[in-house]
Amino acid sequence: MKKIAVLGYGVVGSGVVELFYRNQKKIEANTGTKLEIGYILDLREFPDDSYQDRVVHDIQVILDDPEVGYVAESMGGVNPAFDFVRRCLEAGKSVATSNKQLVAEKGDILLQTAKAHHVNFFFEASVGGAIPIIRPLHTCLAANDISSIAGILNGTTNFILEKMFCDNMRFANALALAQKLGYAEKDPSADVDGGDACRKICILSSLVFGKHVYPDQVYTKGLRNVTLEDVQLAQRLGGAVKLIGAVKRLDDGRILPTVMPMIVMEDSLLSHVNGVFNAVMVWGDGVDKTMFYGRGAGKLPTASAVLGDLIDAVKQTDTDLSQSWEPAEADADFVAPIDAFSAPRCYRTSPCGSGVFARIAAETGVELQNAAEDGCMISCCDQKTAEAFKQKLGQEGVTILSRIPVLVD
Amino acid sequence: MKKIAVLGYGVVGSGVVELFYRNQKKIEANTGTKLEIGYILDLREFPDDSYQDRVVHDIQVILDDPEVGYVAESMGGVNPAFDFVRRCLEAGKSVATSNKQLVAEKGDILLQTAKAHHVNFFFEASVGGAIPIIRPLHTCLAANDISSIAGILNGTTNFILEKMFCDNMRFANALALAQKLGYAEKDPSADVDGGDACRKICILSSLVFGKHVYPDQVYTKGLRNVTLEDVQLAQRLGGAVKLIGAVKRLDDGRILPTVMPMIVMEDSLLSHVNGVFNAVMVWGDGVDKTMFYGRGAGKLPTASAVLGDLIDAVKQTDTDLSQSWEPAEADADFVAPIDAFSAPRCYRTSPCGSGVFARIAAETGVELQNAAEDGCMISCCDQKTAEAFKQKLGQEGVTILSRIPVLVD
Repeated sequence: MKKIAVLGYGVVGSGVVELFYRNQKKIEANTGTKLEIGYILDLREFPDDSYQDRVVHDIQVILDDPEVGYVAESMGGVNPAFDFVRRCLEAGKSVATSNKQLVAEKGDILLQTAKAHHVNFFFEASVGGAIPIIRPLHTCLAANDISSIAGILNGTTNFILEKMFCDNMRFANALALAQKLGYAEKDPSADVDGGDACRKICILSSLVFGKHVYPDQVYTKGLRNVTLEDVQLAQRLGGAVKLIGAVKRLDDGRILPTVMPMIVMEDSLLSHVNGVFNAVMVWGDGVDKTMFYGRGAGKLPTASAVLGDLIDAVKQTDTDLSQSWEPAEADADFVAPIDAFSAPRCYRTSPCGSGVFARIAAETGVELQNAAEDGCMISCCDQKTAEAFKQKLGQEGVTILSRIPVLVD
Repeated sequence: MKKIAVLGYGVVGSGVVELFYRNQKKIEANTGTKLEIGYILDLREFPDDSYQDRVVHDIQVILDDPEVGYVAESMGGVNPAFDFVRRCLEAGKSVATSNKQLVAEKGDILLQTAKAHHVNFFFEASVGGAIPIIRPLHTCLAANDISSIAGILNGTTNFILEKMFCDNMRFANALALAQKLGYAEKDPSADVDGGDACRKICILSSLVFGKHVYPDQVYTKGLRNVTLEDVQLAQRLGGAVKLIGAVKRLDDGRILPTVMPMIVMEDSLLSHVNGVFNAVMVWGDGVDKTMFYGRGAGKLPTASAVLGDLIDAVKQTDTDLSQSWEPAEADADFVAPIDAFSAPRCYRTSPCGSGVFARIAAETGVELQNAAEDGCMISCCDQKTAEAFKQKLGQEGVTILSRIPVLVD
C-alpha cells in the first residue's frame, strides 16, 4: 500500500479526494498498486468532512512518512508551495500539481530536483484543466518537430468573448455576467489582462522548445481594449475574436510566445470553441495539426488531470525525462521580442470604403484579404509593414480605431 | 543501439522511415537510446530507394536478430500481419501497428501475447490516424469512469458529407469527387458502408470498457441512404449530418457500440469538424467532456502515431497493463443489441406542417424539439417509441422519407 498526500484542501484538493474514492478500484487496477489518501495538508480544520481524520497542518508529517509516495499539490501560489514541493521531491515523493504559477515560475528547478531524486514532477492540470495536452505533447507527438501552438487557454475570457459575439454584450456587461455566474473573480485581472493565459503558454513553450520561458518574457495583452465593435467587425469579416496564447519557432531558431486578442477565422475549429471551454491547437511536421479540447477549470475536471498524473507517477520506475526542460539562463537570446511578430491584421477604422484599403494595401506591398466600409484584413506582414499601412491610412484622413492580428491556421 | 524493423513499405511504412530519420536526434534524446531502422520487410524490391539496403523478404531475419527491439507493422489486413506480429511479440519485440483490422479482430490475443512476453503491443495509429486518443484514454483520463464516446472516425465520409452540406452536392457526386481527389478508393465500400469506422469503434470500446468487441457485434449503418434532402433538412433544423462511431454504457452495465449517420447540432464542436479530419469526443465523470481532433489518415500523420508508440515502447520496462483488455468470451451479454438504442430523432416527411408533428408528439409522449414543414426533431426516446411516432404519422397520411438519430452532446 502506498499513500497519497494532498496539499491544499480547496476546490481542486477536495476534488482529487472525491474523484479518487469514486474510482479507486479502477485506479488501483490501472496501476497495479493499492493506494490510499494518507494526508490532507491544510491550515484549516474541516470538522464536518468525511476525511477530517487525514487533515494535518505540518508538511513535516508528510515528509517523514515513507509510505507517502505521491503528492498532489493544489495550494496555488509560489509560497509556500515551492518550498513544500521541493522538499517532497527531495524526500523521494513524486508530485502532481495543478498550480500553473508554480510551474511557470519554478518549473525548471523542480524538474531538476525531481530528476536528481529519481521521482517525477508532473503538471498536466496546470494547462487546460481537464484537457490531456502535456502528456500527449511529449509522448504521442514525440516523433514530431513541433513548430507552433495556439490555444484558448482561459475559459473566463472565452465566455466573455462569446457573450460579446453571440449576444452583442459590451465587455463590461459580459464581465459582470461572468462574475455573477462565478466564472470570473471579483478582481478579474489575472483573466482579462492575460496573466493566466501567459503562465500556461510559458509552460507549453518550455515543454515543447526545451528551455524555461518565464512570464515576463511573454508579450501579454489582455482583453480590456477589445470593444463590441471590434467583435462585430470580425464577425462581418468571417471570424471571431479570441484571446490566444501562442508560441511559434521563428526561422532564426528563436521562439516567440505571445498572449493577445486575435481573430480566428470561422474555418478554423478554434473559432467554434465557446463558453468556458479551452482548446489547444498544435502544429508538427508529422501530424500537420491536431487539437485538444475540454474544460479548462473546475473541481472534478482539474482533479481528473491531477489524478491522471499520480497514476502515471505510480507506474514510472524513474524520472520521465521527456517531460522536462533546461533552465533558461543557458541561452539568453532564446525568446524573441514582439518586434519579430508577423501575422495578417484586421484594422477597424472610420468609414472610408474598400477602395482606399485596396489602394493603400497595394502601396504598402500587402494583399487586401477582406474589406468592409469600416475595416479590412490584410495578408501576413511584419510589425514594420503593419505600422506603415496604419500610417498611410492616417495620412488619408482615416482614423484607426483598433488593430487585431489574425491567427493563421 | 537498438534496431527498429518496419513491416510493409507502403504509404505508412515509408512514412515511418522518413519521419524517423527527419527527427532521429529528437527521438533518441526523448528515449535516451540510440536507434536505427534495421530492416524493412516487403515482398517487393525498391532498387531506387535510399533505404533499399534494409529491405528483406523473410520475417525470420527480423525474428532472429536480437538487436531488433521494436517493430512497426503497417502491412494492413489480418494475414499474414497477425502471424508476423505474434511471432515478433513472442520473440520479445514490442510492436506498434497502424492496422485497425488487425487490432479490431485480434487485439485481445495480441495483447495477451505481449503480456506473456513482457513487451508491448501498441496501436495509437489504428484510430484517428495522427490524433493522440488511445494513450490519453488510458493515461491522462485514467482516473475517470468513462461513460461514452462519439466520434467522426472516417475522413472520407466526412469529406463527402461536407460537400453535401456546404456545396449542395448529391452523395454520388461528392463520392466521385472524393475518388478523384484520392480520398476514396475505387471500391469505396469500407468507408461509405461504415466498416472502417466500425473497426475503430471496436478498438475504442474494447480499450475503455475492458473486453474485446468484435466488428460483427457493432450495429453498422453507412452513408449510402443519406440524401441531399436529409442533409439540407438537418441544416435548416440547426445541425449537420455526420457519420458517427459511438459507444455508450447503458444503465444495465452493457455497452452499445454503433456506427450510423447522426445529426450533430451546431452547438457541438463535433458538428464543425470538416474535410478529411477526424475527431473523438469522450465523456467521463471527472473531465465532463473532452475532444481530440486531427488528421485521420495520411503518410506522415499516421507515421507520427506509429513512432510515438515506438518511442513509448522504448521507454517501457514491462508491459503497460493499462493499455489492454480481456477476451470477449467471458461475458457474452456484454454488448447490447440495437433494440436498446435511444436518442432524439429527426424525421424527414412529406410536407404536412408542424401542427401535425406537435399533436402526434404529444400523443406519443415525446417532446417536439424543432419542426419545419417537411420534418421535425423529437426528444430522446427508445426504439419502440420512435416506431410508434412513425406509425402514427403514417396513419395521418404523412410519408416518412427518412429517420436519422440526433447525437446528444
